[in-house]
Amino acid sequence: MEEEVPGSVGTSASLALRLGQTVFSSASLLFMSLGVQFYSYTSFCYLVTIMGLNIPWSFTLALVDGYSLLVKCPLRQRGILMIIVIGDWILSILTLAAACSTASVVDLLMQTGGAYCPPKLCSRYQVSAAMAFLSWFLSLASSLFNLWLLPAL
Amino acid sequence: MEEEVPGSVGTSASLALRLGQTVFSSASLLFMSLGVQFYSYTSFCYLVTIMGLNIPWSFTLALVDGYSLLVKCPLRQRGILMIIVIGDWILSILTLAAACSTASVVDLLMQTGGAYCPPKLCSRYQVSAAMAFLSWFLSLASSLFNLWLLPAL
Repeated sequence: MEEEVPGSVGTSASLALRLGQTVFSSASLLFMSLGVQFYSYTSFCYLVTIMGLNIPWSFTLALVDGYSLLVKCPLRQRGILMIIVIGDWILSILTLAAACSTASVVDLLMQTGGAYCPPKLCSRYQVSAAMAFLSWFLSLASSLFNLWLLPAL
Repeated sequence: MEEEVPGSVGTSASLALRLGQTVFSSASLLFMSLGVQFYSYTSFCYLVTIMGLNIPWSFTLALVDGYSLLVKCPLRQRGILMIIVIGDWILSILTLAAACSTASVVDLLMQTGGAYCPPKLCSRYQVSAAMAFLSWFLSLASSLFNLWLLPAL
């Protein structure tokens, strides 16, 4: 029974998802940390930490997907797939938490009316939060597609 | 094949989980909304909204569990279980988002040093966020237990 679930490990859809995660996570990290004073707010530090975890994880799995596609031999081991699903899932929860915290803090900072963040810096934080949400969404999609494959093995 | 997954719909563990969710959600809502000015911050309004969704959902499912236990006839319909799993899952994501936003906003308010929230009000917001996290955790557990049962049907 060799079913191909689109989006599971070793398909081109999965490679696209992983690359998307890497790009969005990196964008979120850069937009946040190129602003000067990100370390003065807890949530911004948390976002930077989580993105620092997210980028190597997504990038490694993108490499695995690329390799699987090259040698045309999809990964079909229950143990490894389980680790990937659980890892994806934990990271997606952490990413969601980071994105929500950042978004709410930015919203609050903007409400106080520019005393704590000049408009240029604020919009950069907003973009960073939006990128984190996109990264969360892609990570969730990967996790779901792999979970779908799991009972078939 | 009549396996009993502990924590799935219609078991006493599930009833306990649902009651816990209802209690923690209500506590979170009360701690937040008995404070006077919760509507002046977006995240606090969001928390109140989500808890207002969470309480009836958990309470209804607690009633379903209680009924199933009384008539000793567990719910074993794939469609209904699917709705419960998806509903639980969406609500747990929303609850996590609300809890994180509230926690980060409270943290920021405390950092600014009591100008925006007096210590008594701040600690009440903190308790509310903690209750929301507990409610999220129980909701996630319910969702996972029910998901576990799903392939067996």
